[in-house]
Order: sequence, then C-alpha cells, then structure tokens
Amino acid sequence: MSTGKRAGGGRPTTYRKLMLAEGERLFHLRGFRATTVNDILEAAGVPKGSFYHYFGSKAKFGAVVIEDYTNAQIELFRSWADRDGLSIAERFGGYFDDMIRDFVSSDYSTSCLLSRFASDVAATDPGLRSKINESYARLYSAYVELLGVARERGELAAGADIAGRAATILALVQGAFVVGLANRNVDYLQSVAKNIRDLAAA
Amino acid sequence: MSTGKRAGGGRPTTYRKLMLAEGERLFHLRGFRATTVNDILEAAGVPKGSFYHYFGSKAKFGAVVIEDYTNAQIELFRSWADRDGLSIAERFGGYFDDMIRDFVSSDYSTSCLLSRFASDVAATDPGLRSKINESYARLYSAYVELLGVARERGELAAGADIAGRAATILALVQGAFVVGLANRNVDYLQSVAKNIRDLAAA
Repeated sequence: MSTGKRAGGGRPTTYRKLMLAEGERLFHLRGFRATTVNDILEAAGVPKGSFYHYFGSKAKFGAVVIEDYTNAQIELFRSWADRDGLSIAERFGGYFDDMIRDFVSSDYSTSCLLSRFASDVAATDPGLRSKINESYARLYSAYVELLGVARERGELAAGADIAGRAATILALVQGAFVVGLANRNVDYLQSVAKNIRDLAAA
Repeated sequence: MSTGKRAGGGRPTTYRKLMLAEGERLFHLRGFRATTVNDILEAAGVPKGSFYHYFGSKAKFGAVVIEDYTNAQIELFRSWADRDGLSIAERFGGYFDDMIRDFVSSDYSTSCLLSRFASDVAATDPGLRSKINESYARLYSAYVELLGVARERGELAAGADIAGRAATILALVQGAFVVGLANRNVDYLQSVAKNIRDLAAA
C-alpha cells in the first residue's frame, strides 16, 4: 500500500495517509462539523495518539484535507490544460467531463469537497473559510491563465472578459454538482458542460 | 407577531411558525444533519409535544422547511419575471441582484438553503433528496418559462438552447453563493450576475 515517499518510516506514514483518506470520505458523507476525531480514528483503525501527533487539531486536519483535495483538483485541471493538440474549449470540456465521470462513479454522492466545506463551515470558522477561499483562488487563477491562452490563440475575442468568465466557470463547477446531488441527471450536467465550453470560445 | 392567517387558533399557529423559522435558521447555520429536534425546540421556546404534533418527524419537518423556502424563492423570482417594462435579461439580473443583497445582509453567511440541504443529505436521504430535486425542478421550470418569453420577444435567438441556459442559470445561482461563502466578495458575485444577464440575451 505505501508506495509513495516516506516521511518517517513505513507504518506512521501509512497512518497519516489512512487518516487523511478516511477523513476525506467522512467529510464528504457527513460534513466536517458532524465528523468527530474519534470517527476518523475508528474508520482509519489507527492508534489514538497518531491523530494529534500528525495534525495537532481537527481544524488543522481539515486544512490538510482541503489542501490535498485542492492539489488533486489542480492536477486534474492541468492534465487537461496542457493538451496542446486540443482547443481551449475542448480542454475545459474534458476537465469537466472527467469530473462528471468521477461524480457518476461515486453514485452521484460526492460533489466538490470545497463546496461541502464552504456550506458546512465557511460562515462560522474563519480559519477554514480562509483555507477554502485560498483553494478557490487557486482554481480561479488556473482558469484565468488558460482563458488567457485562448485569447492569445484567437479562440476568444481580444475584448473577452476573462476574469468574469473564470468567475462564472468556478460557480458552474461548484453549482452543477450540488444540483447533481439532488437530480442525479447526467444530461443536466452535460448541458452545463456545453455552456462551460462556450465560455472558453468566441 | 401573529398577523398572518391562522390555521387553528393563535398560539399553536405561532408555535408552528416559530419552529419553522428557527429550523430554517439552524439548518443554514449547522446543516440539517447536525441539528437536533431539541435544538429546534429550545431555540423556538415551544413545548416538547408541539414538534411531533405539527410535523410528525424531523424528516417531515425538513421537507416543510424546504417547501416554504422554495415557495419564497419562486415568489422572489416571479416578482421580477412579471415586470413587463424590463428586458428579460434585466429581470434575471434583478432577481440575482436581490439574492446578492440578501446574502450580503446576512454577512455572507447564508447561501441557498437548497444547496445546503443537497450537500448535507441528498446522498444519504432519498426522501429529502427527492424533495430538494422537486424544488430545483420548480426553479428550473420558472427559468425555462421566462427564457421562452425572451425568445418570443426576440431577445433570444430563435435557435437558442433554452433548456441548457436554464440548467446553467440554476447551477450559477447555486454555485455563486457557495463560492461567496468563502470569498465574501461582491465583485465576484456581480461578475456572475453579468453572465446570467448574458445567458438571457442574444
């Protein structure tokens, strides 16, 4: 199981990974607020002391889960953003289609973890709110950058409002899967995907 | 306080209203899952038996809160949809601007209650999921209808994909305020508002 880099020997690194994986799963399912440290320890099957040893507090653990999740989302986006053979609209479309696929294969049960955290704690936890905001800002900047390439390549008009389009794509990526949790309708998500492509062209 | 219609005498109707108002507030703040029936009773300051007398169960209570909230949202939308003197883009824009105003005056703390419920329980509670889905379907139909008027009036091209635009507006209305919970940025919300106007014109 532990094939990645090791920070401090085999087992402890595995503990850390297990807690993060179970934390992410439980935060999706129940939300950050309703998940206790004991829930995470039990689900991960690790010794009690290891949680505080690695993370210090539930809030710090939440921030690490958000960070890891955001890194994975940025990596997914970049894997599409870097495909030079595709139009920019196709790159945004491929990125969103991959998210649709992941969502459907979760049986329509896990929307974006950032929207989950934002709904659950942004209004009441300033530390986590600022962490979620930082994640949104990273996604937004990545969208702005790729829309800038579209403008350079002449796929977007010279006067296109790139900041506004990036803001809109971010809201669509967040909102589409929240609605999808309730309607479980792939056609609905594909309608939104089409609109995201349109925002990156003409 | 009780100036509205009375279903069965003064005080009990007030009890029902108090529980619904406090329930909505607590569901925004903590989510449905983390709010107990006792939390609602304590916040409303009503006798214990009245909750089960009026609502039967927490799930049924949740469904009534969703229904009431959706009625208010549809009413807000209609108050703009019916303004014959405005272009359809201006009507959608006015509707969204009103939501921005409400959100800012809540100190950026209460996004749409439907997204709150969807994130919190749609994946695990089929009864509430179907209730949330019904609410989304009502909003979606209202958007489709008004976009249809835009097409009749020549404000949208004859070939415009009304269903796709309505799907996109629904995702934007849900997603923008989730992002707004984290970034608390009115300029961000106004960028999205501009895009909603664009979806209802040309």
